[in-house]
Amino acid sequence: MLKDVVRTKSYQNVIYQNKFLFKDKVVLDVGAGTGILSLFCAKAGAAHVYAVECSQMANMAKQIVEANGFSNVITVLKGKIEEIELPVTKVDIIISEWMGYFLLFENMLNTVLYARDKWLVDDGIVLPDKASLYLTAIEDAEYKDDKIEFWNNVYGFDMSCIKKQAMMEPLVDTVDQNQIVTNCQLLKTMDISKMGPGDASFTAPFKLVAQRNDYIHALVAYFDVTFTKCHKLMGFSTGPKSRATHWKQTVLYLEDVLTICEGEAISGSLTVAPNKKNPRDVDIMLKYSLQGRHSAISRIQYYKMR
Amino acid sequence: MLKDVVRTKSYQNVIYQNKFLFKDKVVLDVGAGTGILSLFCAKAGAAHVYAVECSQMANMAKQIVEANGFSNVITVLKGKIEEIELPVTKVDIIISEWMGYFLLFENMLNTVLYARDKWLVDDGIVLPDKASLYLTAIEDAEYKDDKIEFWNNVYGFDMSCIKKQAMMEPLVDTVDQNQIVTNCQLLKTMDISKMGPGDASFTAPFKLVAQRNDYIHALVAYFDVTFTKCHKLMGFSTGPKSRATHWKQTVLYLEDVLTICEGEAISGSLTVAPNKKNPRDVDIMLKYSLQGRHSAISRIQYYKMR
Repeated sequence: MLKDVVRTKSYQNVIYQNKFLFKDKVVLDVGAGTGILSLFCAKAGAAHVYAVECSQMANMAKQIVEANGFSNVITVLKGKIEEIELPVTKVDIIISEWMGYFLLFENMLNTVLYARDKWLVDDGIVLPDKASLYLTAIEDAEYKDDKIEFWNNVYGFDMSCIKKQAMMEPLVDTVDQNQIVTNCQLLKTMDISKMGPGDASFTAPFKLVAQRNDYIHALVAYFDVTFTKCHKLMGFSTGPKSRATHWKQTVLYLEDVLTICEGEAISGSLTVAPNKKNPRDVDIMLKYSLQGRHSAISRIQYYKMR
Repeated sequence: MLKDVVRTKSYQNVIYQNKFLFKDKVVLDVGAGTGILSLFCAKAGAAHVYAVECSQMANMAKQIVEANGFSNVITVLKGKIEEIELPVTKVDIIISEWMGYFLLFENMLNTVLYARDKWLVDDGIVLPDKASLYLTAIEDAEYKDDKIEFWNNVYGFDMSCIKKQAMMEPLVDTVDQNQIVTNCQLLKTMDISKMGPGDASFTAPFKLVAQRNDYIHALVAYFDVTFTKCHKLMGFSTGPKSRATHWKQTVLYLEDVLTICEGEAISGSLTVAPNKKNPRDVDIMLKYSLQGRHSAISRIQYYKMR
C-alpha cells in the first residue's frame, strides 16, 4: 500500500507543506500500519503522535519508529481504537487513511468517527476531512465480453448462471479515460469532521449526459478525498482521468447495452448502504432510465461488494 | 481460474484426445468447482461422473450440469471427499486440478490421495499422474530493488525491519525468460498414482551452472504436470519459458547478490515441508554455496509461503 505513490505522496505533501497545522500538536493516527503517517507528522513538528494499529504490523511500526529515532515523539499502541487508552484526555488532530474500494467497501470510517467523538478536542481537525463519490458512464464492449459474456460459452458449455452472479458483483478495475462517454457527476460529499455513521448510507440522484454517440455498458464510480484545512486545498482523486491508485475504479455492468446519442441522458439514483447481515459488505441499488431515440429503458439493478 | 487457458485447455485436450480412457468409465472429479472437468469427461463418453465440490460453487455446478443436458451423466455432490458417500463402490478414474502456487502451497493433493486410496479401483488412473518441481537462478536487479531494497528508504524513513520479513516470503510472480542465468534443474517428481502424503516433504539437491557472466539475485521454482496415461505424453509447464499461467513462478530472493561467471555453479539443496502449526503454509529451507572466482559464499535461508 505504501507503494501507492499517489496516496502516500498526497499525505506527505499535505503534512510537510502545512507544518503550521502540526507544530506542537497532539496527533492520533487511526489504523497506522507501518506508522508512515505518524512519521510524517512527527517530522512536521507534532508534539506527540499516538499511532494505533490493531494488527501484527504494530510490532513492526514500533521497530520502525525506534530505527528512525522518533521513540520520544511517537507512541505505537497495539489494539482497537474502541479499546485502547491514551495518556492524554484529548488530541488536536486525527489523521487516517481509512478509504476502501468504492470509498466505502471494508472501510475504517466508523473507527475514525468513533475516535473523533471520543478523543478529538472541540476545534480539532480530521485529515482528510472531505470524501466525495462520483459516477460516470463508459463504453466497455471488449471488457464486458471478456468478463461477463465469457460465461455464455465456456470451452463449449453454457455457464450463464454464473454470468448473473458476475453481473451483480462490482468489478474493481482501471478504466481508460477514453472509455468515458458522459459527464462525471458528484453523488455525495461526506464531511468527516461532522458526519455520523449513518451518513454512509444514502440515495443520490444523478443525470449523466452523453458527450458523443456511443454505447454504454457500465456505470463507473470513484472517489476523491480533500484536506480543506491546508493552506491551499489539497487532495487526490481516484478517477479514470487521474493517475492510477490501488483503489482503481469500481465498474457496475448494466444488463442492457444502452445506445446513446450525444446530448441524451441516463437519469436515476444510486443507493448505497452497508449490508445488514455483514456490515463490511456494501449493497448498491441502481435505478436508471434512458429516454433515447433508439430505446426507452428503465431498470433497477442490485449489486453487492463482498 | 477457468480463464487460465493453458490450464483448462490442457485438461480439455487430454480428455478429448484420449476418449478411449473415458469410454464407459466412472470418473470422480475432486474439487470440481464449476464442473468444467466433469463436463469434459461426460462429453468424452464417461459412463458417469461424480463431481465433488465443498464450496457454494457446487450449487452453480448443479445448474450448469443441468443447463448443458448432462444431469443423467454427472452427479454433483456438495461436501468434502472425506465425508461424502458415492452410490458406487469404486471409480475407474480420478481427475483433479489440485495444484497450488509452488505446486504445494494451499494444494488439494492430500484430498486427491485420500480419494485415490478410498475410491479408486486397483488398476484405476489418476489424472494428472505426475507433477515435477524445478529450480533455476535469475538476474533480477531491477525488481529486487523494487520489492526488497524499497524498504531501506520509504519516503525518507528506514523500514529495513520489514525488508527482512519480505525476504522470507517467496514472491509469486512472472519471470522473464531472459532473466534466467543458469540451467533449469529437476528437483522432485511426484507420482500421484503411488505416492503417500508424506512424499510431499522432501530434500532435493541441485547444481545450477551459469550459462553466462551475470549476477544472481534469486532462485526461481516452478512445476509441470503430465498425464502419462494419454496415447502420447501430454501436460503443461508453469516455467518462465512457457506461456504464463495463473500459477506464474515462485521467486526466492537471496540475501547476497552472487557474482557468477559462465561455467561456475551454485550447489545446494532445497527442503520443502508443510508448516507444522499450519499445514497449509509451506516451509522452505534453501542451502547453497557458490565457489566462484569473485567470492565464496555459503548460506542457509528460510522461507515461508503463507
